[in-house]
Amino acid sequence: MDPRWSCSCGFNESIWISYYWKCPKCGRPLNILFEKRFEPSGRGLLRYSSALPLKPLRSMGEGSTPTVVYEDGVNRIIFKLEYLSPSGSFKDRGSALSIGYAYMMGYRTVVEDTSGNTGISVSMYSALYGLKARIFMPKTAPRGKKILVKSLGAELIETESREEAMHAVLEQIGSSYYVAHTWSFLYILGASTISYEVYEEHGVPDLVIAPVGSGGLFLGLNYGYRSIVELGLEKKTPHFVAVQGCSVQPVYERIHGYRYCGESLLADGMMVAKPPRLEEIVWIITKEGYEVHLVNDEEIGEALHELLQLGFIVEPTTATLWAAYRKIREKYRGKTVLIPLTGSGLKTLEELEREARILTRLHG
Amino acid sequence: MDPRWSCSCGFNESIWISYYWKCPKCGRPLNILFEKRFEPSGRGLLRYSSALPLKPLRSMGEGSTPTVVYEDGVNRIIFKLEYLSPSGSFKDRGSALSIGYAYMMGYRTVVEDTSGNTGISVSMYSALYGLKARIFMPKTAPRGKKILVKSLGAELIETESREEAMHAVLEQIGSSYYVAHTWSFLYILGASTISYEVYEEHGVPDLVIAPVGSGGLFLGLNYGYRSIVELGLEKKTPHFVAVQGCSVQPVYERIHGYRYCGESLLADGMMVAKPPRLEEIVWIITKEGYEVHLVNDEEIGEALHELLQLGFIVEPTTATLWAAYRKIREKYRGKTVLIPLTGSGLKTLEELEREARILTRLHG
Repeated sequence: MDPRWSCSCGFNESIWISYYWKCPKCGRPLNILFEKRFEPSGRGLLRYSSALPLKPLRSMGEGSTPTVVYEDGVNRIIFKLEYLSPSGSFKDRGSALSIGYAYMMGYRTVVEDTSGNTGISVSMYSALYGLKARIFMPKTAPRGKKILVKSLGAELIETESREEAMHAVLEQIGSSYYVAHTWSFLYILGASTISYEVYEEHGVPDLVIAPVGSGGLFLGLNYGYRSIVELGLEKKTPHFVAVQGCSVQPVYERIHGYRYCGESLLADGMMVAKPPRLEEIVWIITKEGYEVHLVNDEEIGEALHELLQLGFIVEPTTATLWAAYRKIREKYRGKTVLIPLTGSGLKTLEELEREARILTRLHG
Repeated sequence: MDPRWSCSCGFNESIWISYYWKCPKCGRPLNILFEKRFEPSGRGLLRYSSALPLKPLRSMGEGSTPTVVYEDGVNRIIFKLEYLSPSGSFKDRGSALSIGYAYMMGYRTVVEDTSGNTGISVSMYSALYGLKARIFMPKTAPRGKKILVKSLGAELIETESREEAMHAVLEQIGSSYYVAHTWSFLYILGASTISYEVYEEHGVPDLVIAPVGSGGLFLGLNYGYRSIVELGLEKKTPHFVAVQGCSVQPVYERIHGYRYCGESLLADGMMVAKPPRLEEIVWIITKEGYEVHLVNDEEIGEALHELLQLGFIVEPTTATLWAAYRKIREKYRGKTVLIPLTGSGLKTLEELEREARILTRLHG
């Protein structure tokens, strides 16, 4: 049976008939239903083709990122080095599926609104397939990320804000493929392959620390571990700790009410004020008794400093997870903790420098 | 038997007695002799411990980089994505061995002179092992590379020139471990693991395009393929095409005499005027009938543009190989060609931007 678009409103259709970035009946985010097996073979994302609804025709070498195990005297931490993905972030797993699908469906042009990493990733996979990419990005996005998008041959359209980028792209979809990564189930499925990789190398961890911007990584890891249990490979899913920045805290606010805790401008990669899948995220966290934690710039800055001193070249947004972990580690003594290191610090050297100056003042 | 330092002058001593960055008897570069087997197990660099003289205690996830196969209508190209190494270049393989060895030998401080990539790599592995790193770098090195070295907790000492960096470091070795990557056999052995990885995935290619700065990658790939034959796994080594930039062409000059062909400032990562292993490199190329080709900035710029448009986020120096390949591809119709993509473009975004402006003028 073909993989099928599926919505809670009842909408159901083969994904090989038409592409929808949201449900054409009710406007909610779509899921994809398909038959799944766990028959790992080969390397990279394609190793898990049997657990995915489609097999992209080309690859940039996404997936199969290294893990580094680090004992901090409290817990055993599995760092998953997603920043070593081809375009420097875990988004490549979703883009490999999404742009691969766009190519199979015969699209010639791809459009996307993004604060950065997804834009680079979408531009790279569009280059791989020879598709034209138009990327809408807020002016405030890091300069390095903008340079990259253009170098990869994509057209960059700068807007006043993240919100405006979304409105601009919606006006100009036309016959283009709108990636809509914050809505896309393909990005969730891409992220789920991280669970499979860590599972094969280290089994299922006790605890997973996951960022929630649009929630693709949180939902993807969750989906991956649930699939591992559904497929009968393991009995238990891990406990999840979701992390948001103080400045943009829609999930935290929905569950616990708004809490002022300073700013989190360093977490620029996860500032999604209205995640399309908010209901789903809140529902999972509440039902499963998971936690949400907030972190601010000072905590992120210190965490970034620590990660760099351990040799991990990550971007500030990535450090939110280490910042949250530092606050809760004592509570989870003796556990195995998965921390995905989501994005490369090589893209944000200017921010690193500014950060380094701030930290020099902080720590002398 | 312990692995042993070995020099053509007759010097021979276990590597576990003392460290020498060059032969203490005659001052020439040292080799390491050891018993080798091909028993791949696990992932990353450590997969080939049986073919290395030592097994580092820690890992940053170096090795096991992806390959992407690309048919350009003339040949079958195997791109080896070394730019997805933990610090963004193939140098991590050598640093993993060298800094791992320094740690085993009880050193507390590491010093190195470098034009960039090695400095980042050495800083990162020093951070991993908690060693203090002092990096001597010419002022002219890309700003992004300098920021990274400092962010990783190393001390950066800027000098007027590459040459002066070398003199400065020699004056200040003291009780520190001098990495001396341009001399080091450990960096050659690190690079040899690229041959083993490509061999396991794709067999032995017909042709290898390799840059020659200090020659570590050229010598390492060569050593790797010779080992594959010596171990009885294959009958034939590939043909090699060595590449240098027009501005700094010591190998070409020694073999064919100096040839003016413009400048190659974009190849900043391979400007080594006096490679310590020049004799060895020239001897191999001459004996085996290998080729040397020169490329200039215009050729490198166009090659970089092409690589980016294919989705490969590499630094300008890396594009020298594609520039050379473009000149000779017709001669090798129907062959399998290995091209290592050596360094990440994420580190050199400012250079990319400048380059993009130049290319816009060139191509309209």
